[in-house]
Amino acid sequence: MILNIPADSHFSIHNLPYGIFSTQERDARPGVAIGEYIIDLKALAAKGVFDFDTSVFDSSVLNDFIALGKEVTNPVREELQKWLRDPQSVLAQNQDEILVPQKEAQMHLPLHIGDYTDFYSSIEHATNVGKMFRDPENALLPNWKHIPVGYHGRASSIVVSGTPVRRPMGQVLPKDAKAPVFQASSRLDFELEMAFVTGKPNELGTSITTDAAEDHIFGMMLFNDWSARDIQKWEYVPLGPFLAKNFASSVSPWVVTLEALDPFRVDGPVQDPAVLPYLEYSGKKNYDIQLEVSIAPSGSLPKTVCRSNYQYMYWNMAQQLAHHTVNGCNIQVGDLLASGTISGKTEDSFGSMLELAWSGTKPIDMPDGSTRTFIQDGDVVSMTGWAQKGDIRVGFGEVSAEILPANSSF
Amino acid sequence: MILNIPADSHFSIHNLPYGIFSTQERDARPGVAIGEYIIDLKALAAKGVFDFDTSVFDSSVLNDFIALGKEVTNPVREELQKWLRDPQSVLAQNQDEILVPQKEAQMHLPLHIGDYTDFYSSIEHATNVGKMFRDPENALLPNWKHIPVGYHGRASSIVVSGTPVRRPMGQVLPKDAKAPVFQASSRLDFELEMAFVTGKPNELGTSITTDAAEDHIFGMMLFNDWSARDIQKWEYVPLGPFLAKNFASSVSPWVVTLEALDPFRVDGPVQDPAVLPYLEYSGKKNYDIQLEVSIAPSGSLPKTVCRSNYQYMYWNMAQQLAHHTVNGCNIQVGDLLASGTISGKTEDSFGSMLELAWSGTKPIDMPDGSTRTFIQDGDVVSMTGWAQKGDIRVGFGEVSAEILPANSSF
Repeated sequence: MILNIPADSHFSIHNLPYGIFSTQERDARPGVAIGEYIIDLKALAAKGVFDFDTSVFDSSVLNDFIALGKEVTNPVREELQKWLRDPQSVLAQNQDEILVPQKEAQMHLPLHIGDYTDFYSSIEHATNVGKMFRDPENALLPNWKHIPVGYHGRASSIVVSGTPVRRPMGQVLPKDAKAPVFQASSRLDFELEMAFVTGKPNELGTSITTDAAEDHIFGMMLFNDWSARDIQKWEYVPLGPFLAKNFASSVSPWVVTLEALDPFRVDGPVQDPAVLPYLEYSGKKNYDIQLEVSIAPSGSLPKTVCRSNYQYMYWNMAQQLAHHTVNGCNIQVGDLLASGTISGKTEDSFGSMLELAWSGTKPIDMPDGSTRTFIQDGDVVSMTGWAQKGDIRVGFGEVSAEILPANSSF
Repeated sequence: MILNIPADSHFSIHNLPYGIFSTQERDARPGVAIGEYIIDLKALAAKGVFDFDTSVFDSSVLNDFIALGKEVTNPVREELQKWLRDPQSVLAQNQDEILVPQKEAQMHLPLHIGDYTDFYSSIEHATNVGKMFRDPENALLPNWKHIPVGYHGRASSIVVSGTPVRRPMGQVLPKDAKAPVFQASSRLDFELEMAFVTGKPNELGTSITTDAAEDHIFGMMLFNDWSARDIQKWEYVPLGPFLAKNFASSVSPWVVTLEALDPFRVDGPVQDPAVLPYLEYSGKKNYDIQLEVSIAPSGSLPKTVCRSNYQYMYWNMAQQLAHHTVNGCNIQVGDLLASGTISGKTEDSFGSMLELAWSGTKPIDMPDGSTRTFIQDGDVVSMTGWAQKGDIRVGFGEVSAEILPANSSF
């Protein structure tokens, strides 16, 4: 290795995720994370090492690169692994030009996101929500074990980690009131999710099978689907969440390829009752990815409030994509499909404050002596995730954002 | 006038809507409809008549032109009106180069649609659906008169008029069954809607007031929000419609500017109870636009099955846009916001087959002797709309599509 990579780095040579970075001297462009550095793909391409059209590295989003297809993008990652190990490689010989310290770089939203879909695929989360809001004895709705339930979200308000998020104003129905009031949300929540990025389109009117799905998935990111529970409760019947969600969603800056996650495949939960044939799948389609959420009150140390794992997902990505397209809906390069809140079985593995503090009834202690049932202004919520097998670690970095006070100028 | 415009033309000199067209000789580019012709804006711009950056006319979507702002786009329409009346104008003097017969042109989807939102703003439609599916005595849900209820739809599957639409496959729950089956939708429906196109963005975290809303609205189109009622019924709780809608939506090719619709402003329905202050508005914010839907069975003449009017809308566009952004959600140039099904009070003004045939109980006779409760394969569904005041007519053309049989290869 030409670089010293800390053993606990998320960005080992086994990972090499893609992102968009800029520095004072370099405009926004594609890069690859390695240890504490970024490989500037535009600078590397200028050395003539690639045999495809490298104008894709002039773009300030990854879409054009991803659209080249895995037959191009996978060899890039494999070549980088080789060059990082070879002191005679062009990369090694031109480190000053090609490697940028991450601490000098600003990260940007890495994709032009065409459409964003959010699923609801954790059985523990769906059960918890059903217990709280509907019938504790019949917490899961009749369709839940037959359909990877999902809905469309807002693409324009997806922001990269580090972007502050403003608490939304909105209509809420106070307890026992007959008419709603307009106020700042008082039940602002995070949702611990992961999202995958599609890299290969299908034509409108055609479908993607579970077998073909992984060929259409470029990679994954951490995703915080911010939610205003009080706005959601009043607005969501009958057409689903809208303003309770679309004020912002935060995404981590690095896209980890599905290939980098291959060593961490695991079996998913048994699905009973059996799913319809178009949702059947073969092989290990879940991934063992450890996930954590912390809250840092303003001026305070963070506290880890949730430890979960992506492998808990009842519905896997292949099933989600097969379902999404089974009616002929077309996927494009750069669409984002999120998992829904990833909760585990234990109370400390729930992926939202709604569940962790059980709808406000179990406050959580913070390091500064305060307590939380939902998120307060000035709180920084951070999510991180990584997969580990023996010495191999592949991580996602983090998605983090500070909550700003509502703009109540209305 | 340098051209002879039929009196019943949708595309009078008072209209001048924008679209994207191509011919055998001309690649896809912006144009303006006038009578039976299209003004080729790229060809006209080449004559040096505009004082802004006319590279926007090299684009195959209208977004760049619209993004110039109304201070640029409104004068273009006004200049065209002047030039069309002046035999000495550059336009009049170069008609062979600049005017293209519509019958020689192919129309394209005129926008890159960033995000698509669908509202549910007709009180007659919401009441009809509530009567059929929920409680006839309490057909409207408690939030309906407080919130312009809306949800996010799929942008990628919006297609221009003339594009055939394939009947979707999907999960449906047969009557009295305990488990769903996978089949072609047997309750395929249209929804008569209009959509508006946003032309001026707002920053994430800021809002658009009802007073400012019209400055953010570029124009309007006809919109058919195809719906599979059987898929919808099984999937939509609790997160709203998904595969029942996202297989396709059809839009008319010409964007009629809000300025062209100015003569047709009317008062909207009285809103009782009073809306929250952020939804209050002043002035006439509804528009008197006559709407019709016809169905033509394969090989048969069409039958008009619905006559409705956009002025029936309970919630107007300014309220929809103010609500959409009141939580800080950001709108971008080229977003599409649709009205929801536009039903009137009378049975022949309902905007969907679900309502017209009252959930299958009142079949509608077709010219070929067949009947319809929902849409059949080979049917061509066409919607048209126009506003008329004295001699002034401003029309939308039509949105039309044939239904192809389902792809049941699964």
